Amino acid sequence: MSTPLTVRIDGAPAASVDVLDRGLHYGDGLFETIACRAARPRFLDLHLERLAEGCARLGIAYQDFDPLGAQIRALAAAHEASLIKLLLTRGSATGRGYGPEGGERARVVLLQYPWPQEDPALSEHGVAVRTAHGRLGENPRLAGLKHLNRLEQVLIRAEWRDPAIHEALVFSSSGWLISGTMSNVFLVTSGRLMTPALTQAGVRGVMRKVVLREAQAAGLSVGEGALDAAALAAAEEIFLTNARIGLWPVRSLDGAPRSVGAVTRQLQRVLRPLLENSGA
Amino acid sequence: MSTPLTVRIDGAPAASVDVLDRGLHYGDGLFETIACRAARPRFLDLHLERLAEGCARLGIAYQDFDPLGAQIRALAAAHEASLIKLLLTRGSATGRGYGPEGGERARVVLLQYPWPQEDPALSEHGVAVRTAHGRLGENPRLAGLKHLNRLEQVLIRAEWRDPAIHEALVFSSSGWLISGTMSNVFLVTSGRLMTPALTQAGVRGVMRKVVLREAQAAGLSVGEGALDAAALAAAEEIFLTNARIGLWPVRSLDGAPRSVGAVTRQLQRVLRPLLENSGA
Repeated sequence: MSTPLTVRIDGAPAASVDVLDRGLHYGDGLFETIACRAARPRFLDLHLERLAEGCARLGIAYQDFDPLGAQIRALAAAHEASLIKLLLTRGSATGRGYGPEGGERARVVLLQYPWPQEDPALSEHGVAVRTAHGRLGENPRLAGLKHLNRLEQVLIRAEWRDPAIHEALVFSSSGWLISGTMSNVFLVTSGRLMTPALTQAGVRGVMRKVVLREAQAAGLSVGEGALDAAALAAAEEIFLTNARIGLWPVRSLDGAPRSVGAVTRQLQRVLRPLLENSGA
Repeated sequence: MSTPLTVRIDGAPAASVDVLDRGLHYGDGLFETIACRAARPRFLDLHLERLAEGCARLGIAYQDFDPLGAQIRALAAAHEASLIKLLLTRGSATGRGYGPEGGERARVVLLQYPWPQEDPALSEHGVAVRTAHGRLGENPRLAGLKHLNRLEQVLIRAEWRDPAIHEALVFSSSGWLISGTMSNVFLVTSGRLMTPALTQAGVRGVMRKVVLREAQAAGLSVGEGALDAAALAAAEEIFLTNARIGLWPVRSLDGAPRSVGAVTRQLQRVLRPLLENSGA
């Protein structure tokens, strides 16, 4: 799983990146992880939309989303199922300081991996989850973005090695529930579906957006808000989402069983055709 | 200033880094900026000491500090004055997730630049400083480290373009004074020298450590603590430090003049021989 099938840097085959790249020096860039099924990139428009929003918020001048989309579709077409990780950095540094000088040219790296087959039991029976010890710093300028500053996630993911634990739920420094390390989190309480608003920390996931949209279309009561540890404890159902896994019910939290409920199952049924057929 | 004189990756000349490097993907690494004067790296032991502490805190297995020091001294010897930027990453990813798998081999990049000559008036008459709009997230696990997650600094440095403003002072999300974007900050109040403790955010600079040590040796009253906007407003003297600039007095803050006082001048006199002669 660790070796990419294909690597493209700015459209050309390559294995290494300029040592002056600001992604390496500062984490000055963004990424996307795109699931490709039936030889097509799933939710590509949503990924490119989020990438464009990230570029705008970081002040990265990048315009070539159409050719980039075509390139991703071409890579996806070469394999029945694969995973494409996209890195977009501000490009090579033109000076030595933190401040962009304006002459940088964004760099796009595409890494295509074999599809990482997960045990189907994770979707069916749910996953075991723990609460992270580490917390996330709060910064409204970065909140929501899938940017390249991921040391907090690296350190939290290093908190456990037990392969039976699949994810950790993470709070922010002020005690707000944010997400998993690599997933978004949803709670169902009294029939209402809630997910953290992510105004101070966290990544607004593509699958999170799809779930919010589909839940609304299905007539469920849905909201984004400020959720704390008490809200998590009170939740009747908990589930996780990301672009690769789709939806994982949580069947235990810190060793205590949690039930996989009707709203979770309803959303899994709604999502299934979208996940199988590279849904848009 | 933007083009390095010399680049070494793991000891060998190179211009690019493996596309799987975790520094690029997650900012999973550390850096140092080492001033080289009189053909010798200044405060090299302090830089390597901080680097070792950072490796320990991030769980990066790197041991070769002695050969690394020798390599840095050899680079420094080739130029009367230069600046060496060192990047140490956890190395190439062996898996696809955030969690280190344990088999990574740390990678060291050395970039040597011509010495960036500053206007001596900045040290003599002081610099104009502003208060940053953006704030820093709080995370005790990362506080103090010179790690590669620097998007907050990138965005704050992009807040102004006026070359007459040399630095911005930055607060954390809870309102604590932390540092400049690329410097540490000291306040003098009623003759006592104080600097933020950096338990929640910020970088513990090498020059900050030297100033604390030298101030104590000179018999000054010195402390690290929690400082807020009121403490900044009440300060009789403000100065900035980093490994390259040494010590800059602050002569104005947000357009209001600040006086360059006796403690600042005393410390400049104490530091001068250390800065000129690649002090240890």
